[in-house]
Amino acid sequence: MKYKDIYKNTLLNDIIPFWEKFSIDSENGGYFTCLDRAGKVYDTDKFMWLQGRQAWTFSMLYNKVDENPNWLKNAKYGIDFMIKNGMDKDGNFYFSTTKVGKPLVQPYNIFSDCFAAMAFSQYAKASGDEQIKALAKQTYYNILKKKDSPKGLYEKSTDERPLKSFALPMILSNLVLELEDVLDKEEVEKTIDLSIHEVMEVFLDKESGLIYEFVCADGSHEDSFNGRLLNPGHGIEAMWFMIDIGVRRNDTKLIEKAVDTILKILDYSWDEKYGGILYFMDAHGKPLQQLEWDQKLWWVHLEALVALSKAYEHTGREELMDWYKKVHDYTWSHFSDPKNGEWFGYLNRKGEVLLDLKGGKWKGCFHVPRAMYQCWKSFEKIENKK
Amino acid sequence: MKYKDIYKNTLLNDIIPFWEKFSIDSENGGYFTCLDRAGKVYDTDKFMWLQGRQAWTFSMLYNKVDENPNWLKNAKYGIDFMIKNGMDKDGNFYFSTTKVGKPLVQPYNIFSDCFAAMAFSQYAKASGDEQIKALAKQTYYNILKKKDSPKGLYEKSTDERPLKSFALPMILSNLVLELEDVLDKEEVEKTIDLSIHEVMEVFLDKESGLIYEFVCADGSHEDSFNGRLLNPGHGIEAMWFMIDIGVRRNDTKLIEKAVDTILKILDYSWDEKYGGILYFMDAHGKPLQQLEWDQKLWWVHLEALVALSKAYEHTGREELMDWYKKVHDYTWSHFSDPKNGEWFGYLNRKGEVLLDLKGGKWKGCFHVPRAMYQCWKSFEKIENKK
Repeated sequence: MKYKDIYKNTLLNDIIPFWEKFSIDSENGGYFTCLDRAGKVYDTDKFMWLQGRQAWTFSMLYNKVDENPNWLKNAKYGIDFMIKNGMDKDGNFYFSTTKVGKPLVQPYNIFSDCFAAMAFSQYAKASGDEQIKALAKQTYYNILKKKDSPKGLYEKSTDERPLKSFALPMILSNLVLELEDVLDKEEVEKTIDLSIHEVMEVFLDKESGLIYEFVCADGSHEDSFNGRLLNPGHGIEAMWFMIDIGVRRNDTKLIEKAVDTILKILDYSWDEKYGGILYFMDAHGKPLQQLEWDQKLWWVHLEALVALSKAYEHTGREELMDWYKKVHDYTWSHFSDPKNGEWFGYLNRKGEVLLDLKGGKWKGCFHVPRAMYQCWKSFEKIENKK
Repeated sequence: MKYKDIYKNTLLNDIIPFWEKFSIDSENGGYFTCLDRAGKVYDTDKFMWLQGRQAWTFSMLYNKVDENPNWLKNAKYGIDFMIKNGMDKDGNFYFSTTKVGKPLVQPYNIFSDCFAAMAFSQYAKASGDEQIKALAKQTYYNILKKKDSPKGLYEKSTDERPLKSFALPMILSNLVLELEDVLDKEEVEKTIDLSIHEVMEVFLDKESGLIYEFVCADGSHEDSFNGRLLNPGHGIEAMWFMIDIGVRRNDTKLIEKAVDTILKILDYSWDEKYGGILYFMDAHGKPLQQLEWDQKLWWVHLEALVALSKAYEHTGREELMDWYKKVHDYTWSHFSDPKNGEWFGYLNRKGEVLLDLKGGKWKGCFHVPRAMYQCWKSFEKIENKK
């Protein structure tokens, strides 16, 4: 079978049906995301990251694959739940609520807002709902307002040695494209310029060619646990955001630089002993804070497949296809669960299942279907060309 | 060699010399705790938990083993650093500072205060310093004041479904004995009563015989990630605090109940596949939030050795010696590093070294020497009796 068909079939006949069948909370609205190996709900709390991400996924599929009314209906479950229960009075998004929508964890995490904004924007496009379009815009500007102090009151670090986090410019570079229909042209271009600069000049280290997870305010590196931290999956994911921007702007230099960075990161973080990409690394090879550093996570590998297929699609460099095949073989043989559907999320270093779940507090209906869609579309172009 | 000699020799000829040689920051005061396999400093930030714990260890050894002036001097490094740099203006302890003592992470964590209070109390006894004795008392009352909202401003949970944490009554039950010379008799007895009640009646589940890490305000169990969480090492450690209290009060019923609980927890959390005690478990066998759940941690195993040796010392039940030997064999063969000295802290499920360090952000000069001392003293009694 061709790659494009593998991805398309898996998306439409395995992944999406799994979430349609097991995650919808038709009683209280929103989605259950804590699903065991077979899809059974094992915890009913609702995490706004995952509510937003799933509503985004169903809206995106409606917009890009098929105007299936069930998909729009499924997206609405999450949108309505977030609007009714997810926001505080200032428009900040709680981290989690009970199944009926009572707030459990305060809005300390700006990424809840980011995924809500993405979901509102895609859903507004799908439904034509102008109020939700306005809400997407409002949420976006609230994110910008908070971006220099994303944890707000809940920030535990002093001002002694402030570090900037890569996660924010990284997500902005994707968010702004997601919100293109919602924002003024000028705002879009300004934010793209800013995020290219931050990602490719500030966080991408010239010397090593690797992306650091935190840098000092002046862009220099700090010799501390966070200052030395590398998150290969984050770096690789951001590079396909950069390729998307490069394509949009017809900027081949940006595309080439992103592709070189993907290869650098893969070279550095591939586990020669057991295969797969390590979750966290220390730039100086020192011991890490993260006890889970050597684990193999689903999203890291899926982002690598997306990045490599886009990179190959736009440059045709053969070394990318060699890497693609290596990552493909590891990923499909270790994470996918043809027996019960969907993918495992967490493996130990040796590639054995560590947590027997299909969804949890951080894994939901997002990375798997998004990667399936992106790879399907890239391979459609690659394979139709041949 | 007898067990008492193994523990005594390891404490005095391996563990303590390691920290004396590698951790003292004679330039800035305080201790470096991030030490690699060979003792080399790999990070210079200072964590108040570990400053307090190491100052406590050296003071305790001075008080209980030998009035070695070097030990008192080494304790003073930490005490002076904490007094000069560790406290905010209200007497709360920062989580961490730079090596010269500039605050890095705010006082969000009440255990920083607990370890400071323990250190001040032991050091006051060793040095006869009345001002530090007063500071121990002041810190203790500050802990009591904060105990119902230990994270203060930094609490991210709403009041929707509040949970009580086992860590607090557990540490209070040890802290109050540590501060016996500092506090009024009445306060000591009151706090002992309270912590026995909380530990043995509220957090110890009657049905399963296991200790839960969090319970609802009314003591019931919540079906949520935290509500289902078991931390076997915590439970076992708390049981030897209970044995100490039982001995002090001549309460054989309390001792027997603690011993039964140790056996229950060990039975439940021993990894039949690879040996060792699991780090976290879910009471209903559901997937955990903690990606590190299956790892083997040094302190869990050392607390089990202390608990089993005390349990055997005070009851003579043979099944305890069987368990002791099983845990002993696993622990000494996997964590101890005779080549470079001191013990590894973090192993993967199979017992391979996961982080190549002897100290870090959470592992310092505390669990290893404390367990060595406690086991030495228990086996001295057990083996002299025979």
